Amino acid sequence: MADEVLFDFLHMELVSYIHHSCVKEDNAKDTSIAKLESTGFRVGQSLIERFTKDSARFKDELDTMKFICKEFWNAIYKKQVDNLRTNHQGVYVLQDNKFKFLTQISNGKQFMESAPKYLAFPCGLLRGALSNLGVNCIVTAEVSAMPACKFQIQIQRS
Amino acid sequence: MADEVLFDFLHMELVSYIHHSCVKEDNAKDTSIAKLESTGFRVGQSLIERFTKDSARFKDELDTMKFICKEFWNAIYKKQVDNLRTNHQGVYVLQDNKFKFLTQISNGKQFMESAPKYLAFPCGLLRGALSNLGVNCIVTAEVSAMPACKFQIQIQRS
Repeated sequence: MADEVLFDFLHMELVSYIHHSCVKEDNAKDTSIAKLESTGFRVGQSLIERFTKDSARFKDELDTMKFICKEFWNAIYKKQVDNLRTNHQGVYVLQDNKFKFLTQISNGKQFMESAPKYLAFPCGLLRGALSNLGVNCIVTAEVSAMPACKFQIQIQRS
Repeated sequence: MADEVLFDFLHMELVSYIHHSCVKEDNAKDTSIAKLESTGFRVGQSLIERFTKDSARFKDELDTMKFICKEFWNAIYKKQVDNLRTNHQGVYVLQDNKFKFLTQISNGKQFMESAPKYLAFPCGLLRGALSNLGVNCIVTAEVSAMPACKFQIQIQRS
């Protein structure tokens, strides 16, 4: 329990720090979100190396996604993804009905605009993890009603 | 195990981010260390509230310090402080023989100068936690041989 909140608080401080350090720049919001995302990317890359150290090679893309939804999610957010969907054409949607970083925010239209800054780091985490597993993708997040959140993964074929 | 590395990696990224974002300023090193320390302070404040939620009131200053050395240290670094000393005049020295954030750095004179930036956040954590327990203090860290580290707490009587 203790380490959970440790990570939460550190994440909150990171968001607030990066947010404030970007205020002076133009497009402050976009810059701070991009920075949070890239911080997440690097953390995700490192984490997945540690987590998959003793795993067997994944069979295919779907197998990789299942690992992300179960083991990876569980290690970071202490729960699994609630729903995984795919169109079998390179788009995966991970739905978390109670996303950890949104549980402390009230549900209401006026708070919707503060959601993106708490989702940038998690999006980066996902992209970093997948990138180190050989899956290049774009990750976006969408909130319709807090604290539920959908992460959309769009595979980039080269 | 998983959440341990999560915190480690996030801390590393925070250090590197704050370090780089301060490079352009004068006294870059001092600024970045001050910022890391104050980030730690706020995280420490929040953490200690959570940790002591169900604890009985501490008897005295020494009792508080013992809690910090055992429960608090254990929750964050997964080990206890190895040695606690005091001169009974407001100075406490906490010695950790294998401090978590220094274990990845090689021992050697040339690496000594990178130690302070990894100790600023922990110093802040300590100061924040103690501050919320009603103990105002100055916290400094000293490394003689990695990965051992001494934290010196100097109580400020008002």
